Amino acid sequence: MSERLQAFYRIRADASVIEDRALGVAIEQSVEAPLAAVHNPRVLSDIVGQVAAIEDQGDGWFGVRIDLAAETIGEDAGQLLNMLFGNSSLYEDVILDDAVFPASLVSVFGGPRHGVPGLFARVKAEGRALTCSALKPQGIPPGELAAIAYKLALGGVDYIKDDHGLANQAFSPFEERVRACAAAVRKACVATGGHTRYVPNLYGHFGQMERQLGIARSEGLDTVMIAPMIAGVATLQALRQTHRDFAFLAHPAMTGAARLSPYLFAKLFRLFGADAIIFPNPGGRFGYSLECCGKILSAARGTWDGLRPSLPVPAGGMTLQRVPELLNYYGRDAMLLIGGALLSSPPETLVNETAAFVRVVAGYRYE
Amino acid sequence: MSERLQAFYRIRADASVIEDRALGVAIEQSVEAPLAAVHNPRVLSDIVGQVAAIEDQGDGWFGVRIDLAAETIGEDAGQLLNMLFGNSSLYEDVILDDAVFPASLVSVFGGPRHGVPGLFARVKAEGRALTCSALKPQGIPPGELAAIAYKLALGGVDYIKDDHGLANQAFSPFEERVRACAAAVRKACVATGGHTRYVPNLYGHFGQMERQLGIARSEGLDTVMIAPMIAGVATLQALRQTHRDFAFLAHPAMTGAARLSPYLFAKLFRLFGADAIIFPNPGGRFGYSLECCGKILSAARGTWDGLRPSLPVPAGGMTLQRVPELLNYYGRDAMLLIGGALLSSPPETLVNETAAFVRVVAGYRYE
Repeated sequence: MSERLQAFYRIRADASVIEDRALGVAIEQSVEAPLAAVHNPRVLSDIVGQVAAIEDQGDGWFGVRIDLAAETIGEDAGQLLNMLFGNSSLYEDVILDDAVFPASLVSVFGGPRHGVPGLFARVKAEGRALTCSALKPQGIPPGELAAIAYKLALGGVDYIKDDHGLANQAFSPFEERVRACAAAVRKACVATGGHTRYVPNLYGHFGQMERQLGIARSEGLDTVMIAPMIAGVATLQALRQTHRDFAFLAHPAMTGAARLSPYLFAKLFRLFGADAIIFPNPGGRFGYSLECCGKILSAARGTWDGLRPSLPVPAGGMTLQRVPELLNYYGRDAMLLIGGALLSSPPETLVNETAAFVRVVAGYRYE
Repeated sequence: MSERLQAFYRIRADASVIEDRALGVAIEQSVEAPLAAVHNPRVLSDIVGQVAAIEDQGDGWFGVRIDLAAETIGEDAGQLLNMLFGNSSLYEDVILDDAVFPASLVSVFGGPRHGVPGLFARVKAEGRALTCSALKPQGIPPGELAAIAYKLALGGVDYIKDDHGLANQAFSPFEERVRACAAAVRKACVATGGHTRYVPNLYGHFGQMERQLGIARSEGLDTVMIAPMIAGVATLQALRQTHRDFAFLAHPAMTGAARLSPYLFAKLFRLFGADAIIFPNPGGRFGYSLECCGKILSAARGTWDGLRPSLPVPAGGMTLQRVPELLNYYGRDAMLLIGGALLSSPPETLVNETAAFVRVVAGYRYE
């Protein structure tokens, strides 16, 4: 028995050589050796990648499905990425477009532990989308970040995340920042009776992140952000496994855009345990298409072998004016993230601007 | 005082908007917020990225140098990658081409602990390039991999590395494989009097890798392989820091090719502590140009603020026939890696083929 996962590539090649190129990628992503070097017949039949389909997509591009043996993955998220695209990422004319996994492999990873329901329950919200903002800019000291967090929380936003550029710099060390911001948000929640969650950004390697989670836990926090393509996807996988009280927001840093499809990253991040997935919405600072975001949405929330849904978090230059449009498109099971546009308001009006954002989301009538 | 690192991007844009685009990238890679949201004057002067130069390179591409504040990095390798390209990796029309770091930042990371001299000393080689082969194909059991390792070691190759697809699969669990291959290489070395090193491939996250290093150490091993873009660069940084007896070979899996220059990866891997850097040589299975390999060579071995040199390891479909050409180009301070071509020989001639490889490298007369 040899279960297989399906990897979908786009390959640019002459029609006369596409079959060779496809076989080359199938070999590169499995045994990584000439077939003459494969002396074991079981490896030839069960392990070597198989070209399952080639489709001419025009303009010199071909869609190629390659079936890879699930047993080459083991139970490691990094190895899954490695087998999907590790060496082929070095080919300029190969794009990894999508992947479909057997249910047995899906259950190895298990997907979000909290997911959409967990993130709604944390802030006691229902019947509406969630709201989120970000602490910026990097460079200001913890006290100033905490002052911003306090105002955003007073305005009633559901989640306040660290900017993804906040790590452990001298101007804002992780522990000091997290304790200051957590305290500020607690204080605001006492004043409002709300349930705003502060979401620190993790940095470094697994061991460092475990210590960071300890600090977060000691402040009563239960949600953190991680950039899996910087931290290593196996790090997300392991944190999900060993720190079950925490929900994880996945940040798209270093996911690229041209060579590996953004919606595949959404799918992988959900598979490995991201409870929410941040991605750039069309019309902001990044060029993702509406079609791409539709696929991200399916990857995050679609039915998938019993996995919990991940919460989609459209972001990347969103504004208050666009909230109705976003809610119309993403519906209730989403979290709107507005960072810079909120923080561009003068400090004295930040609470009111935030409250306006929260009000629009709470009052929106879904079709 | 605000030290800066120089990041060199290539941006595709109309000449009429290139200044705006460059400023957009400078903001994205620093404060990640509209300047209107930056109320602290020190952040405006010391933290916001500065566009230092824009050069028209023709065909709609511009070379842009952006100076980023070193203090935004802290001491974390992941954060360095994040600040260089985290969000801009999402732009299809931005390529990260190179980066130059202030000496203070270089000393934070420290580069290779063993590097070229350490890798030569391990195998008591001098006056010639080193030789390397790989254990393939994945899918065969540890005993068969060990039998191959035994023959490669009998043939006298300096380093025998796991294929980068070998992780912790049921067909070849890490511990069983490492113990079997290490024993086989030890046995061969007793027979030959040689000093061949077996190099296991690490998988998973930092905590798992620490356990793997413990297994390797218990077998007397002192050199391992890691794919930093899968493991997370902070993982390499931390292993270098805490496991000082080990030398680390960096594998290029997931480094991409079209959006982030391969030679910049070589530079980063050296900075973070890779003692040797594997990369695809032109004319093999991958499309790196000779010019690109020349830059990789400089990045690996060039003089750099007192860092030890990393050993360049050209690979990716090399053959015995090409050895003289490779030696002529890379010189003595290199390690030639031939995997599949050696393993394509029938099992009964593998020792002799390996010995021929070793002989050619040992007997080559450098110009």
